[in-house]
Amino acid sequence: MELEFINWLRERIGPHPSVVQGIGDDAAELTGLQPCLVVTTDMLMDGVDFQVGQVSPRRIGHKALAVNLSDIAAMGADPVAAFISLSIPQQGGGLLCREVYEGIFPLASRYGVAIAGGDTNSWSGPLVVNITIVGQKPQPGTWLRRSAKPGDWILATGEFGGSILNKHLDFEPRLDESRFLRNSFNIHAAIDVSDGLSLDLWRVLKESRVGATLYPERIPIAKDAMVCAATSGRSALDHALSDGEDFELIVTLPAEDAQQALRSWNLATRLTHIGEVVTEPGMHLVDSSGQQIPLQPKGYQHLFSAT
Amino acid sequence: MELEFINWLRERIGPHPSVVQGIGDDAAELTGLQPCLVVTTDMLMDGVDFQVGQVSPRRIGHKALAVNLSDIAAMGADPVAAFISLSIPQQGGGLLCREVYEGIFPLASRYGVAIAGGDTNSWSGPLVVNITIVGQKPQPGTWLRRSAKPGDWILATGEFGGSILNKHLDFEPRLDESRFLRNSFNIHAAIDVSDGLSLDLWRVLKESRVGATLYPERIPIAKDAMVCAATSGRSALDHALSDGEDFELIVTLPAEDAQQALRSWNLATRLTHIGEVVTEPGMHLVDSSGQQIPLQPKGYQHLFSAT
Repeated sequence: MELEFINWLRERIGPHPSVVQGIGDDAAELTGLQPCLVVTTDMLMDGVDFQVGQVSPRRIGHKALAVNLSDIAAMGADPVAAFISLSIPQQGGGLLCREVYEGIFPLASRYGVAIAGGDTNSWSGPLVVNITIVGQKPQPGTWLRRSAKPGDWILATGEFGGSILNKHLDFEPRLDESRFLRNSFNIHAAIDVSDGLSLDLWRVLKESRVGATLYPERIPIAKDAMVCAATSGRSALDHALSDGEDFELIVTLPAEDAQQALRSWNLATRLTHIGEVVTEPGMHLVDSSGQQIPLQPKGYQHLFSAT
Repeated sequence: MELEFINWLRERIGPHPSVVQGIGDDAAELTGLQPCLVVTTDMLMDGVDFQVGQVSPRRIGHKALAVNLSDIAAMGADPVAAFISLSIPQQGGGLLCREVYEGIFPLASRYGVAIAGGDTNSWSGPLVVNITIVGQKPQPGTWLRRSAKPGDWILATGEFGGSILNKHLDFEPRLDESRFLRNSFNIHAAIDVSDGLSLDLWRVLKESRVGATLYPERIPIAKDAMVCAATSGRSALDHALSDGEDFELIVTLPAEDAQQALRSWNLATRLTHIGEVVTEPGMHLVDSSGQQIPLQPKGYQHLFSAT
C-alpha cells in the first residue's frame, strides 16, 4: 500500500527545473536556486485548523499548502518546493491521503511549486498535516518584521474578518501581490495576517520598536465579518481587527512608494492604505474627528498550559 | 505563553553563519549554501515512534532530529538548518515542549545544525513532532538509491537488529561516517536503514534494477538482536535482517574503493562488507558452503487501509 501510494504520487508529480531528485529517495536534491533561501513550516491539525468530516479533504490540503505560501509571500519570496508530512487515521486513510493531495496539486501547480518530498504515516490519532516550503528571493534581509520605520505608510491587501465562515479554508495566498510590490517598491516590513490584523501588526511594530496609527473607517471589512457581527455581539470592525486567518499581507513602506503603489496597482485584490507607522510605541485608532483611541493587540493565541 | 516560549527558544539558539534570519519572522532566510541543497522531512507520533510517559521527552527530541540527520547522511550531505513543528498536548504542554527541545539542542549543536524555524501548537491530541532539515552537498546526483552497479560491494555501518530495546531512541546519525566515505570514495548508491536491512537494501536494488548476494555470517548482529531472539522465537540473524530503525548506512561502491575504504577506516563505528551487487534481480543469502537461499525483503511497513 505504501509503495502503491508513492507510485501514485510520483506519477501525479511532473518534473521541475529545480528538483534533481524528488520523491523516492532518502531526501530531495534541489539545484539552481538563488543565493537567498527562504524556508517556512506549518503544522495543521484536525480539530484545530480544520474539522475532518465537516470539510472536504481537498480543502484541507489547499489550506495546508496555502498557509505556507502565505508566509513565503510575506517574505517577498518565491516558493520553489514543498515537503509534505501526513499522519493519517488508519481507517480510510488511503482515500483521505489522496484527497488531501488532490487539494494540494492545483495550488502547487498554479504557483510552480514542486512537491519534492514528504513522509506519509498512519496512526490511531487525528489527521495532522505538516508542510515545509523552500523558496528563494533576490536579496536577504528584506520584508522582515523588524524593519518598519516611522513615517511608513501601512498598506493591506484584501479584506479582514469573518474568515472562519469560509476564507480560512479557501483563501488564495498573496504571492502575485507580493511579487508586484517587491518588483517596484522599497518594502520595509511585512507580515501575513494569520492570527489577527491588530495582533500581527503589533508583532511588526514590536520587532521594529515603533508604533502605529490606524484609520478605522479605512480598514477593509469583509462581508463575512458583518455576517459574524450580526450574531456575535461584536462590531464588524472588531472582527476585522482581531479575527485570525485572513492571510492577507500587511506591508510598510515610505509614503511616496506607498502612493505610487496605490496608483499603479492593477491586481484584482484590493490594496488599502490603513494607517501609518509612528515613533511612539503602541497602536491607536484615529477617528474622523481626529480623536486617538488606544488599540490593544487582539487575535488568536496558540496557548498551552505551563505545567 | 507563546511569546514567552519563543523568547526562551531564541535565547537558547546561538547565531549560525548560514542563517540571516532565524526564528521570529514569517520564514527563515539562509544564505551562502552550496549549489546543491538536500532536504528531508520526517514526522514522528506518540504511540508509533515513541511512547510519551514511557520515555523521556529529551529522548523523543533526540530521535526526531536524529532520524532526519540519518537521511542527510544517507545522501552524502551535510546538514545546515532544522525546522521543527510540534503539536503538543494542552495539559503540561509547556514543559513537554521545552524538554523535547532539550533533547534536540545537544545533537544539533554536535553537528552544527541551526534551529532556524518552527511551528509550535497545542491541541487535545497526542504529541507529534515534524522536523525538516535543509542540508547541502558538493555535487547533485550522488549517493542515490538508483545508482548501485553490478560488481559493487555492499558495506554497512554499525550493527543490526533489536533496535526497539534502546537504539531507536538513542542512535547516533552516521554523519561522520558518511563524510569519511564521501570524501575519499566513489559511492554509487546509499540508503539509511529505517525500516529493516533487507527491506531497505531491496529498495536500493529495485531502484537500481539489480540484485544482491549477502553473506549471512558477515551481517553484523547487535547484542540487542540476540536479546530479542531469546524470547521472540526468531533468530538473531532474522532480527538483524528485518528489524526496523537501525539507522545504519548501507552503501554500494566499486570493489576496489570498498577494499580501500575498509583498510583506511579509522572511525569507532564498525564498517562491514556484507555482500555484493549482482545483475540478476532479487536477493540471496550465500552460506559458507556456497549454497544460495532466496531472501525476501522484510521490515516495517507504514500501512494504512485502502478505504
